[in-house]
Amino acid sequence: MTFTEQAHLARDASRALATLTRGDKDASLQAMADALAAAEAEVLSANQRDVTRAEESGTEPSLIDRLRLDSSRLSAMVQGLRDLAGLPDPVGEVVRGWRTPVGVSVNQVRVPFGVVGIIYEARPNVTADAAGICLKSGNAALLRGSSSAVESNRAVVQALRNGLESVGLPADAVALVEGDRSVTTDMMTARGLVDVLIPRGGAGLINHVVQHSVVPVIETGTGNCHLFVDASADVSMAIDIMINAKAQRCSVCNALETLLVHRGIADEFLPTAFGALRDAGVTVHGGPDVVSRDSAVVAAQPDEFDAEYLSMDIAVKVVDDVDEALLHIRRHGTGHSETIVTTDQASADRFIAEVDAAAVLVNASSRFVDGGEFGFGAEIGISTQKLHARGPMGLAEMTSTKYVLRGDGQIRQ
Amino acid sequence: MTFTEQAHLARDASRALATLTRGDKDASLQAMADALAAAEAEVLSANQRDVTRAEESGTEPSLIDRLRLDSSRLSAMVQGLRDLAGLPDPVGEVVRGWRTPVGVSVNQVRVPFGVVGIIYEARPNVTADAAGICLKSGNAALLRGSSSAVESNRAVVQALRNGLESVGLPADAVALVEGDRSVTTDMMTARGLVDVLIPRGGAGLINHVVQHSVVPVIETGTGNCHLFVDASADVSMAIDIMINAKAQRCSVCNALETLLVHRGIADEFLPTAFGALRDAGVTVHGGPDVVSRDSAVVAAQPDEFDAEYLSMDIAVKVVDDVDEALLHIRRHGTGHSETIVTTDQASADRFIAEVDAAAVLVNASSRFVDGGEFGFGAEIGISTQKLHARGPMGLAEMTSTKYVLRGDGQIRQ
Repeated sequence: MTFTEQAHLARDASRALATLTRGDKDASLQAMADALAAAEAEVLSANQRDVTRAEESGTEPSLIDRLRLDSSRLSAMVQGLRDLAGLPDPVGEVVRGWRTPVGVSVNQVRVPFGVVGIIYEARPNVTADAAGICLKSGNAALLRGSSSAVESNRAVVQALRNGLESVGLPADAVALVEGDRSVTTDMMTARGLVDVLIPRGGAGLINHVVQHSVVPVIETGTGNCHLFVDASADVSMAIDIMINAKAQRCSVCNALETLLVHRGIADEFLPTAFGALRDAGVTVHGGPDVVSRDSAVVAAQPDEFDAEYLSMDIAVKVVDDVDEALLHIRRHGTGHSETIVTTDQASADRFIAEVDAAAVLVNASSRFVDGGEFGFGAEIGISTQKLHARGPMGLAEMTSTKYVLRGDGQIRQ
Repeated sequence: MTFTEQAHLARDASRALATLTRGDKDASLQAMADALAAAEAEVLSANQRDVTRAEESGTEPSLIDRLRLDSSRLSAMVQGLRDLAGLPDPVGEVVRGWRTPVGVSVNQVRVPFGVVGIIYEARPNVTADAAGICLKSGNAALLRGSSSAVESNRAVVQALRNGLESVGLPADAVALVEGDRSVTTDMMTARGLVDVLIPRGGAGLINHVVQHSVVPVIETGTGNCHLFVDASADVSMAIDIMINAKAQRCSVCNALETLLVHRGIADEFLPTAFGALRDAGVTVHGGPDVVSRDSAVVAAQPDEFDAEYLSMDIAVKVVDDVDEALLHIRRHGTGHSETIVTTDQASADRFIAEVDAAAVLVNASSRFVDGGEFGFGAEIGISTQKLHARGPMGLAEMTSTKYVLRGDGQIRQ
């Protein structure tokens, strides 16, 4: 089957999904969960074949860990689908409504996009997760996973499709897009057939999709996140937030990558910070004026302030004032999550007003910038673009709207 | 100056705009209005040079009419800027806010995009209109007008920039982008410098931008709008709505282009409809089964149901039922505004649920799908895309949002 044929089937299925009640959708999510649980043996055996192939081709252990499923990870995928059934339905929500002067009622109502394409990398758990989020938001899902996970993804998608069919819904609401790289191009050029593409993965994948897609894209971006410790900061609070943002889970996009310290507090703050980072297992990188402060500091490469380490490393810079901190963030930030620790209301207000990012934080860890922490219940990613959705994307961000106008014969004068 | 240099100046200016109060912005809009009014002689004389050049090159009269400014049109441009000053400020609105379980306050706040690029065709009034809407929404505007209007646009932009400078704001908040076609490519590839591109004009321009831009685009689309007269329709209401939607102003995107009539009412409705359309000066186009009903009906070309006439022409088709009407709209519609006239609640509900368009109307004229009629006060266009904004776009649709998180030292467990 060509991609175009597959996309047409998805579009037909999307029309059935668009008018389902919440009850129908929740029942189908439970059926998908049941079918996935029942297929545990097939899924794990398919996954073992993917893992063996990856090992034989010398894939690095961290990637193999992402690829690997076990009973516990599969249970989490099943539970994720059941959790979605417990969330409110975003579709049908009246975002706003009014009556025009001539008495026409206007309601802006949430509706599904239609067909959503997700392009993602090695983790097979994304397959069930993305399919479930699309289903709950009334969208058909075209899932383009990594070739390294193809057997796992086939087994997971087959189970989900069986679940859909068991409750009388079209299996084509969830489909795996297979084929060589040219099929990714097919997805990116399927304007009118695919309503939105969401790349999930590293910067390379995301940039490729952004550059080549004529289908609208929601960019789930990279996070080069900064913490600015202002001259007025509570040192102990700043240390706690720094360690939490950097070390609680360093491989995620809302983790801290660069520490900016106001010169007025640097002599007091940095020695404690270096000790706390060392104790947490974090390597500090810095320019000459930071290297000179501590023998454990590694000299930073020129482009290191643009790096998203996603590892137990942090870049540190001393800045003269709020202006220099804002300028640094403007030049090196990726517009994800930027934090100030301060007791000075004026500094906080300037930082909030002038930093251009999906999230700006005062005296809290950037690890809170997350769909789960926001109470969204589900998250398809964190958008760093300014159109449509910015920041953590929950179910509402997976919808469009439609204006419904009702009259009794009104015409325009 | 290269486009990149110009875009950097606009970005610098956008930072100043982002933190202005409503009072500052309204004062600057009044200053822009004053300066434009004061420049009437220069603007009209520049416009006369554009008009003369167009006449000499044999431009068709309807395009020359769009290009031409006179004292009355200029006054309308000036008044448009003053009207914007009277509208609420979209920036700073808290869209939603809550406190997380650990006490971090989260507010989603409206913020400007930053730099907005507008690519448009011959009407020089768009220059002031778009600049004003961008300014009120806190965005810097890079205006790429038509070469046919370049002298008019230069004079208008110079006046607006003088107005900005007179109140101490950066002139670069509004700039005209000049140069050959390669500068349009520069705009479309200026990812990171330009936050959003909005093409305003015909289908050719819009498709070109959509196909080639790596900067996010808001598509202000074409409208192949349908009216479906259901079997249960009130004939007199259907006639009134049809004539209003088709003939009140036929050159706009929310005007009616195709009439679909339920076979069950066709014999009763069509003779009256043909008469009313003839009286209004509208030419009816149809297939064999419509041609056979009235000698004045013109035989439609095969692709005519895909045409956006934007003229006093209408395509007519008889359909068997609601399903065939929905199928026709799915195949030929552009997702703008689709109308049903019916007294049957079930037909209305199906039409609302199943038509995939920016606006769906029951028993009202599609001419109501308009920022002015919606009470938005200003409109940059009507979006037919599903991302970010769908339907009439007012000031709120010219903004993004930012999450502001405030804590007192919270870290994630």
